Amino acid sequence: MITDFAMRRQNLWVQVLVLMFAIFSAGYAHAADPLPSWNDGKAKSAIVDFMTKVTSEGSPDFVPVAERIAVFDNDGTLWPENPLPFQMAFAVDEAKRHAAEDPQIAADPMVKALLAGNYDALMAGPHHEGLLQIMNITHAGMTTDAFAKAVADWISTAKHPRFDLRYVELTYQPMQEVLAYLRANGFTTYIVSGGGADFMRVWSDRVYGIPPGQVVGSTARVKYELRDTGPVLIKTMDSLFVDDKAGKPAGIHQFIGKRPIAVFGNSDGDKEMLEYGTIANPRPSLGVIVRHTDAEREYQYDVNPKSSGTLVEALKEAPARGWTVVSMKDDWKTIFAPK
Amino acid sequence: MITDFAMRRQNLWVQVLVLMFAIFSAGYAHAADPLPSWNDGKAKSAIVDFMTKVTSEGSPDFVPVAERIAVFDNDGTLWPENPLPFQMAFAVDEAKRHAAEDPQIAADPMVKALLAGNYDALMAGPHHEGLLQIMNITHAGMTTDAFAKAVADWISTAKHPRFDLRYVELTYQPMQEVLAYLRANGFTTYIVSGGGADFMRVWSDRVYGIPPGQVVGSTARVKYELRDTGPVLIKTMDSLFVDDKAGKPAGIHQFIGKRPIAVFGNSDGDKEMLEYGTIANPRPSLGVIVRHTDAEREYQYDVNPKSSGTLVEALKEAPARGWTVVSMKDDWKTIFAPK
Repeated sequence: MITDFAMRRQNLWVQVLVLMFAIFSAGYAHAADPLPSWNDGKAKSAIVDFMTKVTSEGSPDFVPVAERIAVFDNDGTLWPENPLPFQMAFAVDEAKRHAAEDPQIAADPMVKALLAGNYDALMAGPHHEGLLQIMNITHAGMTTDAFAKAVADWISTAKHPRFDLRYVELTYQPMQEVLAYLRANGFTTYIVSGGGADFMRVWSDRVYGIPPGQVVGSTARVKYELRDTGPVLIKTMDSLFVDDKAGKPAGIHQFIGKRPIAVFGNSDGDKEMLEYGTIANPRPSLGVIVRHTDAEREYQYDVNPKSSGTLVEALKEAPARGWTVVSMKDDWKTIFAPK
Repeated sequence: MITDFAMRRQNLWVQVLVLMFAIFSAGYAHAADPLPSWNDGKAKSAIVDFMTKVTSEGSPDFVPVAERIAVFDNDGTLWPENPLPFQMAFAVDEAKRHAAEDPQIAADPMVKALLAGNYDALMAGPHHEGLLQIMNITHAGMTTDAFAKAVADWISTAKHPRFDLRYVELTYQPMQEVLAYLRANGFTTYIVSGGGADFMRVWSDRVYGIPPGQVVGSTARVKYELRDTGPVLIKTMDSLFVDDKAGKPAGIHQFIGKRPIAVFGNSDGDKEMLEYGTIANPRPSLGVIVRHTDAEREYQYDVNPKSSGTLVEALKEAPARGWTVVSMKDDWKTIFAPK
C-alpha cells in the first residue's frame, strides 16, 4: 500500500508540473487565437462570444462545467458527406466484398442496384427497404468485434474518390479547432449523428478525440451469446433507432441525459437537435449551421434538395432562432485538417 | 480575451493549490484504508489486489485509464431491493396518485391489483402484461421533465417501510467506498441496471457521484415535440429495452462502447454482464457478487427463487469464473452510508 500511495503522490506531482507549465504557456499564449483557421467575421465572433459568456464566473450567463454539453453532427459538419456519406461508401465496398464471396448476395437485386450506382432504387419505398437490405447484409449478422475489424480495415485503406485521401484525413480543420476550443473550456463534446454508432466508435477517439461513450448514433439491438471462445454480441437490425431529425433530441436524451447548450449541424436532419438545444433553454446556448458553399475546395449543395445533407428548412428557421450560419467559402481559411 | 485568459490562469493556480493539498493529505493518509467499512478477508483483498495490479505501471497487467471501466448493478448491489425494488415502490405511489385524480385509472384491474399488493397478478403472463400496464400509467405519456419532477418529489419525501429513511439514504457504505476507490484510481464508474434510466438519472449524480451519461438502464423511445413553450420529449413504452440479463452486455455495448474490466452485481440478472466483463477478456478483470446474507441488518434472500434479486445460477458459476462472492453479514462492518 505504501508503494501505491507513493506512486499516487508522484503522479500528483507530475500533474502539478503539467499545470504549472500550462500556466506559464497561458502567460505566453494569452493573445493566441483559438480558432486560427476561421476568418474574422460574424460566425467566429458568435463562437468566441458564447464561450466568453458561459465561462465568465460570477456572470448570470455562467454555465457550470457539468452542464457544458456540446453536440456535433458528423457527416457534413465534421467531415464531408459527398459524393456519398462515408458510411455509405463503406457499405458499397462491403457489399462488393460479400458479393464476391457469396453468389446469393451477388444475386440480390438491391446489391445489384447498389453496385450499379442506382441509389434511387435503394431509397425507394416508404422505409427505404433497399437501403435496409444493404444495411442488413453489411451491418448485421456478424459479431460487434468482426464489424469493428471490417470498419478498421476499410478506414485505414479506402480513399475518397475526389480528394484521393483516406476518409479520416478529410476532417474539417476549423471544426477540429472548435472541438479543441470547447474542450479546453470545460465542455464535453459529443457526436450526435445519423451514422451508425458502431461505425463511428471505431475511429472517433483517434480522429476527433471523442471516446466511444460520447458517440450517439443510429443503433439496433445486439444479441448476447456466450460461445466457447468467450462472450460475443451479434449485430442485428432489430429495433432500429435512426438518430436523425426528431431522433436526435431523443438520442441526446437517452445517451447523454442532459440538454446541450452548443449544437453544430449542417442539414435539415439537425433542425430538431438545434431547436432542442437553443429554444427556451434556461441556459445561454449556441446553434451553428455549416453551409456547404465552396464548390472549389469542398462542395456546394445545401440548396439542392436532392443531395444528401439537404439544408432548406433549418436555414429558413435560422434567423428567427438566432442560429449562426457559417459559410465554408467565406468563413474558413482552410478546409481540411493537415495530414 | 486577456480577462478570459487571466481568469483561466487563476483557475489553474487554484487547481495547483488543490493538488498540493491532496499531496500533503496523501502524505498523512498513506496508510489509510480505502475500504474502511470492509472486514479484512478474501473479498476485500480481491478488490485491493485487482486495483494494485491494473494500476501498476510497467506491469503486464497495467490497464490504461481510458480502459478502466467499472459497471455496477444498482438494485441489491448499491442499495436494497426489498421489500420491493425502489422504483416499484415509486410506481405504486404514482399509481395511487394517478388513481386519486382519474377514476378511469382507479378502475383499471391492474391498478387495483397493485394497490391491493397482489404482485403475482402483475407478473402473470409471458410479458408481465400487468406490470407493463402499470409502467404505462406511471412512466409514459408525460414529458421527460414532468417525469423527472415526479421522481425528484418522490425521492425527497418517500420513506422505506422498514428502515424509515428516505430511499436515497439507504445506499451501501461499503459500495460507496468501492465507487470512490475506483474513481480515485482512474476508473470511470457506470450504473448498469434493470431500473429505468430516466428514474435513476434524476438522483444518480448526487447519490453516487455518477452523472446521467454514465447511467445505463432500461429505456423506451421518447417522442420529440416542439410546443409553444419550447421543445419537449414525451415518454412512451415503444421499443422497450430491458437492461437485464442478456440485455446488460447489450446495454454496455450500446451506451459505453467498451468492455468493462470490473463488474459488480448481486443476482442472476447480472450473470451475463459478469460473463461479458470477465470471460476471455484480454485485460485483467474482476467480477464481484454481493450476497444478501444479513437478515438482521438488511435482508437474507439470495437462495429464495421467489424474491426479487434471485441469486442461483450466477452463484453456481462463480467458483469456475473466479468471481468474488461478498457476504454482507461477514464482509461488511456497516451496511448503510451515514446520513
